[in-house]
Amino acid sequence: MEDHLRLERRDQRWVLVLLDQRVLPRVTREIVCTDAASAAAAIRDMVVRGAPAIGITAAYGFALELLAGGDPLVAAEVLCASRPTAVNLRWAVERVSSVPPERALDEARAIHAEDVAINRAIGRHGLEVLRGLGLGRKLRVYTHCNAGALATGGYGTAVGVLRAAHEAGELERVFAGETRPYLQGARLTAWECQRDGIPCTLVTDSMAAAAMATGRVDCVIVGADRVAANGDVANKIGTYGLAVLARHHGLPFYVAVPRSTLDPRCPTGADIPIEERAASEVLGYGSERWAAEVDVWNPAFDVTPAALVDAWITEDGPWTPTGA
Amino acid sequence: MEDHLRLERRDQRWVLVLLDQRVLPRVTREIVCTDAASAAAAIRDMVVRGAPAIGITAAYGFALELLAGGDPLVAAEVLCASRPTAVNLRWAVERVSSVPPERALDEARAIHAEDVAINRAIGRHGLEVLRGLGLGRKLRVYTHCNAGALATGGYGTAVGVLRAAHEAGELERVFAGETRPYLQGARLTAWECQRDGIPCTLVTDSMAAAAMATGRVDCVIVGADRVAANGDVANKIGTYGLAVLARHHGLPFYVAVPRSTLDPRCPTGADIPIEERAASEVLGYGSERWAAEVDVWNPAFDVTPAALVDAWITEDGPWTPTGA
Repeated sequence: MEDHLRLERRDQRWVLVLLDQRVLPRVTREIVCTDAASAAAAIRDMVVRGAPAIGITAAYGFALELLAGGDPLVAAEVLCASRPTAVNLRWAVERVSSVPPERALDEARAIHAEDVAINRAIGRHGLEVLRGLGLGRKLRVYTHCNAGALATGGYGTAVGVLRAAHEAGELERVFAGETRPYLQGARLTAWECQRDGIPCTLVTDSMAAAAMATGRVDCVIVGADRVAANGDVANKIGTYGLAVLARHHGLPFYVAVPRSTLDPRCPTGADIPIEERAASEVLGYGSERWAAEVDVWNPAFDVTPAALVDAWITEDGPWTPTGA
Repeated sequence: MEDHLRLERRDQRWVLVLLDQRVLPRVTREIVCTDAASAAAAIRDMVVRGAPAIGITAAYGFALELLAGGDPLVAAEVLCASRPTAVNLRWAVERVSSVPPERALDEARAIHAEDVAINRAIGRHGLEVLRGLGLGRKLRVYTHCNAGALATGGYGTAVGVLRAAHEAGELERVFAGETRPYLQGARLTAWECQRDGIPCTLVTDSMAAAAMATGRVDCVIVGADRVAANGDVANKIGTYGLAVLARHHGLPFYVAVPRSTLDPRCPTGADIPIEERAASEVLGYGSERWAAEVDVWNPAFDVTPAALVDAWITEDGPWTPTGA
């Protein structure tokens, strides 16, 4: 599944077409971006989300802006400011800006194609790690949010590992946490599993601990928005709690990431900026508002200390943090 | 707030009037029960929920049935089968059935009045326990689901402790976990706090760990649907995970319960039946359905081992489990 984020020729110019992830799976709608500002808006408004996917979107948006003769500095600033936590944004923009403008679009295409290949490599390495558990039966894996095809150029990071296990006939079932407030697990991961015929059980985030305590889960695997040099992991809010719960139950906790998500310039998790989003996301969902009028705290991400991570799985195999 | 569950004289007979908790806080609507079957339906359909409140509802429903000349055995069976996990149901029905039929309604009224008094006593004892933390400043307390006035005859168990702390000027803020799938925290606890002017921050359940790790929370207090003789606690799904997280962060975890929720006939948590509810609750909320079509696991409760509980606070003060 790689068509959720694609370059198309329309009216004699290139445009970026994005599947609108805000309304999946109920509505299939596409959003067209023509420049850096519209790509940045799509990232900010979560038409597209997931660290690798927003990197690719930023790369395309930056390239389209250069093609149209826009100011590269302004474009880079607009794109990098669209969401603060993922490091892939800056990485992708810097990479496209390092080539001559006439090659910018090819560079963005290369980032996209490489990302799919990277995810398949992460899938292969991740499957080896899961095999290392030596369970002697098919795997039951808990995942959070959507580190799937939709969050990447295609195939997925954490979900890519699950795809690889499913393709090898070694996956019994995915447990998908619904991932409030934005419901990426319920809407996106469950949808990807359904499309690919991967057995999937949806639970609310509050059920993870009970699923572990009742022996339903063998391990946890998630993606990441940024990994600090020391191995601390910023990922979707709720990830840190899952890591604590996994450790309590003696279950391995894995993070699947492309190397572009590793941030050597960021020493520890304390140095990763954590985006806080609007109260409306917690007070309800979409146009529905069910909560009473009280204050809200809505951090989009949390930080999982490296000590709670059993392996960081990249396209080159397991990665070891600096100083570990 | 005790008018959410009240006996009224209508058309020359007594009826039980229940505030419909399924639609709060958006809609204020009342449901009228006239006999055991309609009271059982209100419990099963979650018009009323919370162990003490369903006990009181069952007591009234049983008494109304007796007044109308119904079969006590059939009525008891219908009421006790309405939800399996809470022990208060059986306790309340047995208590009403132990008096002559003409005194049944008075006995149900007594159960109701006693419950409010019990909650105020729990509040007083709970405040003493919280003072024992010796923080030297106002308290910031995390709670889950709704162990409030709505879950009881009035005042609340866990929220009763928060009310007592607020009335004493010793509460800085409540953190209310939204409590998917039924959103009792977002809809009911937040609403009670708003009505009483108690500062309240709403978070999704997945944010509890981050709230603890970032020093926003001093302790956790919850109610319970049943406490086994050894101190294991059955309560709303998500409670167990909070207890694990609290222990990991060195925060005390308290359970506030009337003695009627203690079940000496139930040796351990493994002996407590855990209700599993419909998939539709997890696939969306209300009439809204957002998830992809996958399997669902929807346990309504989980079991927190006694070892993770720092105190069980009853109307008689802290309780000690058998064998502890």
